[in-house]
Amino acid sequence: MEQDAAKRAKTETEMVVDNNDFLVISDDANHPANLIPSLCAKFWTLGWVTGTGGGCSIRDEVRDLVYIAPSGVQKELMKPLDLYVLELSKQVDLKNRVYLRSPPGGRPSQCTPLFLAAFTKRGAGCCIHTHSHWAVLVTLILESQGPGNDKMFEINNIEQIKGFGRGFQKSGNLDYHDTLRIPVIENTSHEEDLTEFLEEAMDKYPDTYAVLVRRHGVYVWGDNVHKAKTMCESLDYLFQLAVEMKQLGLPWISNVEKVITSSGR
Amino acid sequence: MEQDAAKRAKTETEMVVDNNDFLVISDDANHPANLIPSLCAKFWTLGWVTGTGGGCSIRDEVRDLVYIAPSGVQKELMKPLDLYVLELSKQVDLKNRVYLRSPPGGRPSQCTPLFLAAFTKRGAGCCIHTHSHWAVLVTLILESQGPGNDKMFEINNIEQIKGFGRGFQKSGNLDYHDTLRIPVIENTSHEEDLTEFLEEAMDKYPDTYAVLVRRHGVYVWGDNVHKAKTMCESLDYLFQLAVEMKQLGLPWISNVEKVITSSGR
Amino acid sequence: MEQDAAKRAKTETEMVVDNNDFLVISDDANHPANLIPSLCAKFWTLGWVTGTGGGCSIRDEVRDLVYIAPSGVQKELMKPLDLYVLELSKQVDLKNRVYLRSPPGGRPSQCTPLFLAAFTKRGAGCCIHTHSHWAVLVTLILESQGPGNDKMFEINNIEQIKGFGRGFQKSGNLDYHDTLRIPVIENTSHEEDLTEFLEEAMDKYPDTYAVLVRRHGVYVWGDNVHKAKTMCESLDYLFQLAVEMKQLGLPWISNVEKVITSSGR
Amino acid sequence: MEQDAAKRAKTETEMVVDNNDFLVISDDANHPANLIPSLCAKFWTLGWVTGTGGGCSIRDEVRDLVYIAPSGVQKELMKPLDLYVLELSKQVDLKNRVYLRSPPGGRPSQCTPLFLAAFTKRGAGCCIHTHSHWAVLVTLILESQGPGNDKMFEINNIEQIKGFGRGFQKSGNLDYHDTLRIPVIENTSHEEDLTEFLEEAMDKYPDTYAVLVRRHGVYVWGDNVHKAKTMCESLDYLFQLAVEMKQLGLPWISNVEKVITSSGR
Repeated sequence: MEQDAAKRAKTETEMVVDNNDFLVISDDANHPANLIPSLCAKFWTLGWVTGTGGGCSIRDEVRDLVYIAPSGVQKELMKPLDLYVLELSKQVDLKNRVYLRSPPGGRPSQCTPLFLAAFTKRGAGCCIHTHSHWAVLVTLILESQGPGNDKMFEINNIEQIKGFGRGFQKSGNLDYHDTLRIPVIENTSHEEDLTEFLEEAMDKYPDTYAVLVRRHGVYVWGDNVHKAKTMCESLDYLFQLAVEMKQLGLPWISNVEKVITSSGR
Repeated sequence: MEQDAAKRAKTETEMVVDNNDFLVISDDANHPANLIPSLCAKFWTLGWVTGTGGGCSIRDEVRDLVYIAPSGVQKELMKPLDLYVLELSKQVDLKNRVYLRSPPGGRPSQCTPLFLAAFTKRGAGCCIHTHSHWAVLVTLILESQGPGNDKMFEINNIEQIKGFGRGFQKSGNLDYHDTLRIPVIENTSHEEDLTEFLEEAMDKYPDTYAVLVRRHGVYVWGDNVHKAKTMCESLDYLFQLAVEMKQLGLPWISNVEKVITSSGR
Repeated sequence: MEQDAAKRAKTETEMVVDNNDFLVISDDANHPANLIPSLCAKFWTLGWVTGTGGGCSIRDEVRDLVYIAPSGVQKELMKPLDLYVLELSKQVDLKNRVYLRSPPGGRPSQCTPLFLAAFTKRGAGCCIHTHSHWAVLVTLILESQGPGNDKMFEINNIEQIKGFGRGFQKSGNLDYHDTLRIPVIENTSHEEDLTEFLEEAMDKYPDTYAVLVRRHGVYVWGDNVHKAKTMCESLDYLFQLAVEMKQLGLPWISNVEKVITSSGR
Repeated sequence: MEQDAAKRAKTETEMVVDNNDFLVISDDANHPANLIPSLCAKFWTLGWVTGTGGGCSIRDEVRDLVYIAPSGVQKELMKPLDLYVLELSKQVDLKNRVYLRSPPGGRPSQCTPLFLAAFTKRGAGCCIHTHSHWAVLVTLILESQGPGNDKMFEINNIEQIKGFGRGFQKSGNLDYHDTLRIPVIENTSHEEDLTEFLEEAMDKYPDTYAVLVRRHGVYVWGDNVHKAKTMCESLDYLFQLAVEMKQLGLPWISNVEKVITSSGR
């Protein structure tokens, strides 16, 4: 066992020399290189990153660094040494990136340009992409409502809506009565080709913190890890609720005020 | 790693000095300041406190202290040092509290006056608030039955009903045949504004140990942590069962006696 | 911390003296007093023993001892010192038991006479009682089919049926094509009063390893812990499948042979 | 405790002598004898190997060895010493195997010849068999569509489809638009009798990485553990989605292109 540990340590040292591994080695549990694996393991248990699907990226604003989960790795087994790192300000083109660190044998995530779009267009500190089947079902239910009614998920009068910020560079959160609106973009064969549609949606709906991708999943971002993660959880809660409401024949949009009045309260 | 530990220890010591942290530092796993984080972590895995929603508060009757989970914290990551503490008997107004301990950078939970109402009006030792989507769905199903039929969840003839006490200052638990009745109050934009409606429901239904909040969740309390937690679990079990019964077209209220007779037993 | 450990050790020593605690203290993970808590913790995560409901008992045939989970304890927190122990052959009346060991402040489980019935009438080595809501829903679906069709759960042509033994003192397991039949008894206000109905069902269906209790849950037993636990899991799997089949309009009983023939295979 | 450990070590040493146990003892977490138990424990939490159902086998190509989970063991408790080992090239007949290692008191898995079929006919490195109830429900839904429409599960235009390889000795994965097709074979009373039907399906659908077994579960294989496990996860995700789509009245096959055009995008 000790021999193994020694061997492992040696291998890691070599990698540091070759590959800027010092960027992803830290004793601090809150370092992005430690946070991404622990978040992805948690997301795996939630069914968000099944079968290597989905991913997560964190931006360190002070050091201009972006840490990204690799492609094709079992998300619950990810290690800090699996991560990619790049300098955000030095990227000329979101689709042709220069990496500061690439894990040997790794493949960069196809989600990378979408994560970078959240960082550059929204100043986000963290972006999460899930394949949650609740998200996929919501896009399928919308699709079944026919063209014209399939590009926007809307729900109101649910307490969990208060988990969302009012929008980009606005302070405070949505109210219970507010309608949460999440735009839906169509899926593409290559995930990178989603980038322009994601950016289009960001332009059209400047205050949204999330974009649904039809038959695919959802992208959620926030100013920091805490905000992105808790909004992603709240959104998944609302998607699940929406599917269950649909199964029970209950509408997603309601005017509770009227109900209260007519019941004589 | 050792440096980190030293740093952390130092920070904690400073906090104790500044902030009555001694109130939340204990080696006893059953100390309220240790119980609240471990309960909240468990509740997170049950989907009760998704995205910082929900919370938990414990009263130490002997020392007149109330321990409260903070607002906006990821519930599965909560630490004892995140907790608020106040002296119950010294509160003049449930909405304007004086805290014995406030964590630096923390925000007190909007649920606080509702927790305090359970302690002052019911002598409860613990109060739990969940956003369980089973609770929310039950209130939505009731709402869909129209005004007049939407203010009370009722179920009978289910064994798990025996998990509930008969009521305030009564001994013993409900029987299997008894009808469990949980009142529903309407949600408000600000959680603190629920307080008067919660108190109203407590006055109107003196024996209830729980109040549903429409499109929001449920408040459950008990004489101690054990009773509040196990009643909250039993209630969530019944809410889930009720939703599944609804999906299968089965009624929540039945007269099993009749069925037994007519089947000739 | 060390003081605490010392204090705890001392308390435990005192208890041993007072209370035959040596019967439940063992370093062997497979000792019944260690198995029951670890099983109950597992059952809690499966939703089988929510809110102190359900339970588990193991018989040590060689030493004529029966170990029983107590009433009213949070099942995921149970400790060996919470357990009751009695000598099986010395019980004159299943309803009035003499305990070799009673935990201080504990309450014996109301399930005790039902567990003992499985041991005395079937020679079982382990009996498990769950409140699984899949079991409850199956009894409710049967009840909705009206008197005469509500006393027996039947399913066939599902591979998991092979997880069941052919019956009492018979060797081998059921076949895939066999129909698994689980009798349903009506619930009573006091769990102990179920005993005679359970014994009646055992007499009427001598080969069954389980009895459903309407609107309550299920009792499952087996020759040893392994068999009781794996049959309980297989049964819960089948109950869940049966509920989902009902939601999809699929029948529980089928004649697959016909289907194969008519499709020309 | 120490005595116990000594006793256990001695027992293990004896077993090594008797039984080629050295084949399953390794400090390397990625050794097949360690991977199978850890995978099975994970599969148990996913509900894939409930009540000893299902299993897993890994082939070590270099050493010509196949490691197989035993029959009748609680999958979440499996240990390396429970495993069977055989030399693949020395097997004359898949149904009459010669084992290099048989655990004392163990029973070889009835799935063994099916696992070996994946290794010999497809050169697979790992094969997983689950009883996932989503898989079973998909076969039941197909069966309810009547003969002629019940032998193939088909779904398209879902992102998770990209988790599947294009086929045997082909490189690359399926596209989002591609239709994933998983053949269904009928169940047999004895699992070993499935072998010829599995091989038949492999011949008829040379590119499939999985075969559904009606009312039973699914077999999934891949070039290595990573591919088999992630394809199995992706497939279970798609089966769950398909059942939920059915409950919501949504079709499994769609032509998204048309929808996009008609909505004027």
